[in-house]
Amino acid sequence: MEPEPPGASGPAEPGPRVRGVRGAAHAASASVLSGAEAEPQRCALAVAAVLPAGGSGERMGVPTPKQFCPILERPLISYTLQAMERVCWIKDIVVAVTRENMEAMRGIIQRYQHRRISLVEAGVTRHRSIFNGLKALAEDQPHSKLSKPEVVIIHDAVRPFVEEDILLKVATAAKEHGAAGAIQPLVSTVISPSADGCLDHSLERARHRASEMPQAFLYDVIYAAYQQCSDYDLEFGTECLQLALKYCHVKAKLVEGSPDLWKVTYKRDLYAAESIIKERISQQICIVMDDEEDVGRLLEETLKNELNVSTQIPSLTMSKR
Amino acid sequence: MEPEPPGASGPAEPGPRVRGVRGAAHAASASVLSGAEAEPQRCALAVAAVLPAGGSGERMGVPTPKQFCPILERPLISYTLQAMERVCWIKDIVVAVTRENMEAMRGIIQRYQHRRISLVEAGVTRHRSIFNGLKALAEDQPHSKLSKPEVVIIHDAVRPFVEEDILLKVATAAKEHGAAGAIQPLVSTVISPSADGCLDHSLERARHRASEMPQAFLYDVIYAAYQQCSDYDLEFGTECLQLALKYCHVKAKLVEGSPDLWKVTYKRDLYAAESIIKERISQQICIVMDDEEDVGRLLEETLKNELNVSTQIPSLTMSKR
Repeated sequence: MEPEPPGASGPAEPGPRVRGVRGAAHAASASVLSGAEAEPQRCALAVAAVLPAGGSGERMGVPTPKQFCPILERPLISYTLQAMERVCWIKDIVVAVTRENMEAMRGIIQRYQHRRISLVEAGVTRHRSIFNGLKALAEDQPHSKLSKPEVVIIHDAVRPFVEEDILLKVATAAKEHGAAGAIQPLVSTVISPSADGCLDHSLERARHRASEMPQAFLYDVIYAAYQQCSDYDLEFGTECLQLALKYCHVKAKLVEGSPDLWKVTYKRDLYAAESIIKERISQQICIVMDDEEDVGRLLEETLKNELNVSTQIPSLTMSKR
Repeated sequence: MEPEPPGASGPAEPGPRVRGVRGAAHAASASVLSGAEAEPQRCALAVAAVLPAGGSGERMGVPTPKQFCPILERPLISYTLQAMERVCWIKDIVVAVTRENMEAMRGIIQRYQHRRISLVEAGVTRHRSIFNGLKALAEDQPHSKLSKPEVVIIHDAVRPFVEEDILLKVATAAKEHGAAGAIQPLVSTVISPSADGCLDHSLERARHRASEMPQAFLYDVIYAAYQQCSDYDLEFGTECLQLALKYCHVKAKLVEGSPDLWKVTYKRDLYAAESIIKERISQQICIVMDDEEDVGRLLEETLKNELNVSTQIPSLTMSKR
């Protein structure tokens, strides 16, 4: 019912080691995405994105915040930025990082040649980080090079496999409804415990959904919500859609997302992300070569070694001209 | 806060290819678990387990039901059975499989030498499968070799990394409270959609938990609940704890589980499971050899090849006598 699609339009440049094949990967993704790209250009929707990336990743059980954990030697956040900046109708991408990680983040942007990225300082909670990102996009900010968007997408730095299709759906739905967010079926039943640690009641799974990212909002709606919202909400809240509902009475449109919107949370998710990225790389590599077969074989071997793939790469295509 | 522990007491015999090191792995796990094992023996609690394994795995997007998907060439369910049968105080393990997979399941039991397993036919839903498993344990079943347990554990065939510690906790809590289940913090906020596909309200994440497996019950409680429960519950219900509450007024004790209780649901979870199993194997292999270094090196190379590990195995210990 919800197959995990092979990643034809996933992150196309997954590591510094495969820079040599960038051109081909770009060409492939451009052709896949051209249909979807036409839509927001036609309606000239000004869209920006805010990525809170100030988390400590305490559930991962490793000292590095999860958004900076390396996958094939490249930080996780770099894959997410790549997935976002590939979408040409997202004009600006504002990333909120803690002061101590600001320099590292600048290094990542430079090393992986990320474009259209602005950095702001993260707050101590997720909501405060998002608010800081939104402030940077407000028209009343002095010295800001950014312009106020009509629609703002909020996405997590630790969801690297976001596709243009779902970004377009939430942005379009936000334009119409004021707010929109990706959802998924619940994997586990959700229960409510009583004060003594026993089951109070369980929720009917079919009547509930997991709220995922990306979400999108009319900028004026979500900015107004954050300006009004209480310290309690900023400290303990988790859900932007709820803020839009509570403070602006905007009922978000819910959009079914695909399973690959999942959030890298635990160490096992890093393993899964690495395997998916390897699989995508192997599906995207196509070597066109002359008759000099030795060079081709050498290249194939080198690539395999670089990608750390022990078994054969099934779709490493060797074509002769 | 919830680190994923390295799997010292995870499945110890993860594939037919490493059978040669079974002895060492067994010895290690026995010493780790001996403290916990003492507890239910002291109170002489008769415990059985029921594993529903009749699902089609439609969310995986592959034709093979997920419990039979191979990880390092061994079916997922075999790792779960291994984790359960390693716990010596679980007397019987009843597995519910569909008629069409019955023969394959018998083959798995034989090939991986699983013990204390009884097979029953799965129903068309998860609850009907569990009910069939419970019926096989009822004392009024003619021709049954199984004896009615005091406590029954219900666990999913697709949660291979269950530890004895949590099995013991839920079994002990079930003895005291009548029912108990493992829980985890929610990873995503849970929302309730309205009929028109918009947000109705979102649930406060801190007040809710994900209900996971294993769960345990006084046999008489859960069997009575299933005997009374409606066709609607059997068709559409997902939560055994809820049945015990609804039909027997037993409020289950909730026990915090570790993140590695997670359920293999999507293809990415298979990738993660494979990486975790490889990591555990590499942590468990210790080769003791004589001075004939060539033999040792050959063995190391063979093991690496067999395990399909391209990079170095960090803890493949080579000791000389």
